[in-house]
Amino acid sequence: MKAVRIYGKEDIRVEDVPISDPKPDQIQIKVKYCGICGSDLHAYTDGFGLPMHKHPITGREVPITLGHEFSGEVVKLGSEITDFQIGDAVAIEPLIACGHCANCRAGNYNLCLNMHAEDGGNFLGYSDDGGMAEYVNAQASFAYKLPKGMNYELGALTEPTAVAYEAIKKSGLIAGQTVAVMGAGPIGLLTALLAKTMNASQVYISDLSEERLAKAQELGLTTLNPSQVDVNDEIRKDLPNGVDITFECAGAQPTLNTALQITRRGGIVQIVAIFGKPVTIDLSAATMQGYNINTVLAYNNSFPLVMGMINNHQDLFKKLITNKLGFDQAIEGIKSLATDKSQVKIMISPEL
Amino acid sequence: MKAVRIYGKEDIRVEDVPISDPKPDQIQIKVKYCGICGSDLHAYTDGFGLPMHKHPITGREVPITLGHEFSGEVVKLGSEITDFQIGDAVAIEPLIACGHCANCRAGNYNLCLNMHAEDGGNFLGYSDDGGMAEYVNAQASFAYKLPKGMNYELGALTEPTAVAYEAIKKSGLIAGQTVAVMGAGPIGLLTALLAKTMNASQVYISDLSEERLAKAQELGLTTLNPSQVDVNDEIRKDLPNGVDITFECAGAQPTLNTALQITRRGGIVQIVAIFGKPVTIDLSAATMQGYNINTVLAYNNSFPLVMGMINNHQDLFKKLITNKLGFDQAIEGIKSLATDKSQVKIMISPEL
Repeated sequence: MKAVRIYGKEDIRVEDVPISDPKPDQIQIKVKYCGICGSDLHAYTDGFGLPMHKHPITGREVPITLGHEFSGEVVKLGSEITDFQIGDAVAIEPLIACGHCANCRAGNYNLCLNMHAEDGGNFLGYSDDGGMAEYVNAQASFAYKLPKGMNYELGALTEPTAVAYEAIKKSGLIAGQTVAVMGAGPIGLLTALLAKTMNASQVYISDLSEERLAKAQELGLTTLNPSQVDVNDEIRKDLPNGVDITFECAGAQPTLNTALQITRRGGIVQIVAIFGKPVTIDLSAATMQGYNINTVLAYNNSFPLVMGMINNHQDLFKKLITNKLGFDQAIEGIKSLATDKSQVKIMISPEL
Repeated sequence: MKAVRIYGKEDIRVEDVPISDPKPDQIQIKVKYCGICGSDLHAYTDGFGLPMHKHPITGREVPITLGHEFSGEVVKLGSEITDFQIGDAVAIEPLIACGHCANCRAGNYNLCLNMHAEDGGNFLGYSDDGGMAEYVNAQASFAYKLPKGMNYELGALTEPTAVAYEAIKKSGLIAGQTVAVMGAGPIGLLTALLAKTMNASQVYISDLSEERLAKAQELGLTTLNPSQVDVNDEIRKDLPNGVDITFECAGAQPTLNTALQITRRGGIVQIVAIFGKPVTIDLSAATMQGYNINTVLAYNNSFPLVMGMINNHQDLFKKLITNKLGFDQAIEGIKSLATDKSQVKIMISPEL
């Protein structure tokens, strides 16, 4: 079968690989769509997240088949599988967890204590073969049937939406609160959109790119461009005390500074982005505001909820899928994320 | 009456001032004990927290009578007071809050939106006359009767203990969890001691001062001196995954770094200290650990709980009162905090 394989920094190849059989607790999926994530780009440009040595849980090292945002049709069942049938439409939660450490036992398998951050975490598409292939095997306990009426494209959007949802969950956002989102990339847009569908009173989103803000406007969000306005001043015209929760989805010093400025006293600054380098924070000023600065990594126990939310607002979430490419254009698609700000989510499909 | 008055940086005077009558909603207290706080020292050395211009709520500016950790006997009642009697023994929560902003209405009056951080916050002893005087007037709604069996010294210990308690409350600590405390100054010791009395499984406390660690040992805490051992290594010998919650009560870059190292994946880093300068944080590393970095400012609705906790463990809390001085030694006592690490809590009393 064809697969998009990464060998290391700046080395991705589309090549033919054998199809392996699912293990007893796995299902085999014929991939329908697989989204390209910003971290796929980072894997290409910097080698981010790749197991250059034997991964402690999976035993795998590069080359690895990329892709962790995918949906597909069940075509083969491992010997122990009873709750799936051939032909089921599923999305896959691409986490790999030991299942027995204190965090896994507590339901926080995204923070599995046997995840080695230095080995790229525990994800299909990094630590084991992912969804940018014609077929992929996945643990059945991490497979979720698409709800009635949801197509495979939206199914593949579940994973990045779960990242946004988990940030919202950790922030404690409740309906009616006010929200600001720093950065209108895919995760920023998804976070803002989810907050809006949950009936947050106000949802502001800021970005330097007018192309991204145009997409945000299409989603009905209130946009702010820090190159044109003072974001803090603008928000405080409407909300003199600031917003209840700010989601930092840009991951840079200036946007973090803004987040620490626009959040109301007693509010939450929720870090969502992976920051490229260390930042400076005035914790004394944060203390005078009583802020909680939360981080979040991946998601747990969220896929069914996220699918339900996407399915309720299909027309809005569809707007985030901006391109669909075949395997032969996958490398080009991954690279384009670095420059083309008009792209939100590019989907790869073996059928195109 | 005699009062310890601050005029600005490096200018404290013990002088005679008139006694003013309590307002209708105030009680007048004959002060019994008033603790010296590290922030009184900072007010002296740096002018920290002083209203050099008219305070927005109290209308006051320097000179101000210092002291925000005090207990005393009720000697006069404002015209509206019905729930106190002459002779009642009370401790005073020294906050000043507008009572009508969104945060006050929500019970978070410590984060009153009409508190102006640049004017030194809203505290008796900074924004209005405090407890280092023979008499002080205080709002009755912020006065709490000492529980049966609690003396005035322990009553005056309620305020700093409430700072520690609020940090514990915000961290979400539950009995049986493991805790590390960075810094064995008064707030660090009180935080560790409270955690211990709440039956945290393990309570580690670290400090560079052997004098402070000796006091911590007297309280039954497990001590670590980073000049002698690697704090992370030592803790992980007992707890390979790290502690559930770290309280940062030292307020410096190296201790923050340690806090971000010793806390378990998915744990809480609770900032308690006021940091003297901005710090550098690797938020990407914090994200891989799923940390929440919480701050906390003062306390709300905690005094009755804190008094009950101190009263249950009088013998332990008494160990933190290391000296008692009369007014004439107050300035000397404040200055001594800068150098004498054997002192935890020095109490000033008009009766000495």
